[in-house]
Amino acid sequence: MLSSLAALRRAAPALRRAASSSPTAYTYARHGHPSTVITASTAAAPSSPSSDQVAVSFLAAGVDAGDVAAVLGVDGGAGKAPFPRVAGHGGVAVVTAVGAGVKGLKAGDYVVPAKAGLGTWRHAAVVSSADVLAVPKSVPLEAAATLTSGAATALRLLSDFGALAAGDTVVQSGGESAVGSAVVQLAAARGMKTVTFVKESADYASTVERLKSAGGDVVVSETYASSSGMREIFADMGAPKLALNGTGGKVATELARALAPGGTLVTYGSATPGLTVPASALTGKDLTLRGFSMERWLGRASRADAEGMVAALADAGVASPSVSKVKFGNLLDVLGNVRAGGGGYVAVMPEGERLMM
Amino acid sequence: MLSSLAALRRAAPALRRAASSSPTAYTYARHGHPSTVITASTAAAPSSPSSDQVAVSFLAAGVDAGDVAAVLGVDGGAGKAPFPRVAGHGGVAVVTAVGAGVKGLKAGDYVVPAKAGLGTWRHAAVVSSADVLAVPKSVPLEAAATLTSGAATALRLLSDFGALAAGDTVVQSGGESAVGSAVVQLAAARGMKTVTFVKESADYASTVERLKSAGGDVVVSETYASSSGMREIFADMGAPKLALNGTGGKVATELARALAPGGTLVTYGSATPGLTVPASALTGKDLTLRGFSMERWLGRASRADAEGMVAALADAGVASPSVSKVKFGNLLDVLGNVRAGGGGYVAVMPEGERLMM
Repeated sequence: MLSSLAALRRAAPALRRAASSSPTAYTYARHGHPSTVITASTAAAPSSPSSDQVAVSFLAAGVDAGDVAAVLGVDGGAGKAPFPRVAGHGGVAVVTAVGAGVKGLKAGDYVVPAKAGLGTWRHAAVVSSADVLAVPKSVPLEAAATLTSGAATALRLLSDFGALAAGDTVVQSGGESAVGSAVVQLAAARGMKTVTFVKESADYASTVERLKSAGGDVVVSETYASSSGMREIFADMGAPKLALNGTGGKVATELARALAPGGTLVTYGSATPGLTVPASALTGKDLTLRGFSMERWLGRASRADAEGMVAALADAGVASPSVSKVKFGNLLDVLGNVRAGGGGYVAVMPEGERLMM
Repeated sequence: MLSSLAALRRAAPALRRAASSSPTAYTYARHGHPSTVITASTAAAPSSPSSDQVAVSFLAAGVDAGDVAAVLGVDGGAGKAPFPRVAGHGGVAVVTAVGAGVKGLKAGDYVVPAKAGLGTWRHAAVVSSADVLAVPKSVPLEAAATLTSGAATALRLLSDFGALAAGDTVVQSGGESAVGSAVVQLAAARGMKTVTFVKESADYASTVERLKSAGGDVVVSETYASSSGMREIFADMGAPKLALNGTGGKVATELARALAPGGTLVTYGSATPGLTVPASALTGKDLTLRGFSMERWLGRASRADAEGMVAALADAGVASPSVSKVKFGNLLDVLGNVRAGGGGYVAVMPEGERLMM
């Protein structure tokens, strides 16, 4: 997967050549390299919703490694719409019309996808009312467009893997991602302490600053994760009960090492490499290793649970993640820069641009 | 740990030279290579038990990779008796005298250790009555001497990691060990199906035959674990909900691959190498990875739970594992042959020899 993303970056010029000047949707008819299989289309959306449908006009769409994984077909098959399908998991849309039988949604409401693989890389769509969730307009556009891949994932990671209380410590890798910053924010709001490992990239210093401003207690580079100083920090703060592995690789071993006996290490995201842990960590410390997929969670959650989650995130005043904005027509230009655990974008539709002014 | 065991095998002649002709206990005063740190001793046991103590005379002692790990100090510190300490975790003894305040045990009862690191490599001992559990005399001597490392581990693995029902499939590696054969036997008694991977050693054919006789449904070599034929077998039997990783290494990846969505992979034993799993198995199939240590379980179990477990194993008619018998005086001779996931021995005391005739 990582090598696929690396190949994608190398292929970026080809992607730029393929981009249409005024597409209304990005579709693909088979799995494969995005530069090969994604078509920029100008097809019109179906005109009016039937009884249980809603017509929506997208304002912004998320663009991250999970979207690329879905096109490549390496995401575990979370998005199973028939081919050809519209790409994109995350997005925020405004309801433009509702079918006669639709309850709880009206024209003008903002909505986010209630399932994986809704197909958000398009101007407009007519979808089942069950496939979208109302989202308060107080949620910033960038946060709403990445809600199900960013803040919602962070909320689930902090809520579903053991009972954490104020004062407990959580350690995570991949702090530069939308999930990572939402973990910092949501944990701080609950009085939990966070230790965040961040990749040393060009914008490392500003990422550290941003995460500390969001309430992060300790934000250090992945390189520092294995240092003896780190052991002293954990001794002071208390060993974490929960570790969140957003990027895989060597730092995952440090996450396992930092955990308190009985702790849980959760791997999430579709683009992380394999995980190696010493058997002694499993047997000697009674660790539990789990995986989490937001797509799978959405697939099995009740509507009430999903609505409750969106409401909780809106109440928490979830901040905009650190994503770059790009015009929808230029979406394919940035695909080559998307990388696991960071490098996210929000593609803004023409109407979204107006709303954001 | 594996390399330590390999070094131990190479050092076997040195061990033989160090062995005393008539030791009554094997002790060590610091962690290290068994050939260097274990002393064959002829010290007499304390003479009479105080109020809450019992005097016991050992009949047989288990000798396996877990014992070696404890001497090396790589077992997570399960055996924490002060130095110098007597080696050996597993064993069966006859009670020869009880203190005035002891209830539930009387002279002539058979007992097994109720905690890790009791020190079973000795003729006799005076220990706290809380540190031993009565075991019915119907349990074969070899099974009793390895109960807490073999059959008890198997029982916990099948009982504590998800609700398994008759008809469910369990897959395991390390089928040649005492745990592996007890898993086959106990699972068959509950109507569960087993797929067992066995190392291809010199006695491979007889191991397969023995495990099939014990009720194993599919018993194949580790090499076959990754074959396409294996996938067909799992398709026929139903994907396993539980995988038991007794040996680590590459076959652990096949165990993870075989698991049904939502399944659990449990790593146990003190001598397995690290575990590598694709992140996609954790996120895409919602797998859970756990570790199990019988020593830790014994450390936190209530006496009622531990007694109940021994009774359940006796009721199940737990069979003798495939261990080699060796005279207690020759125990050090066989240490070099002990290997992770198999190669277990039972050292028989002089009194045990009479009982087994």
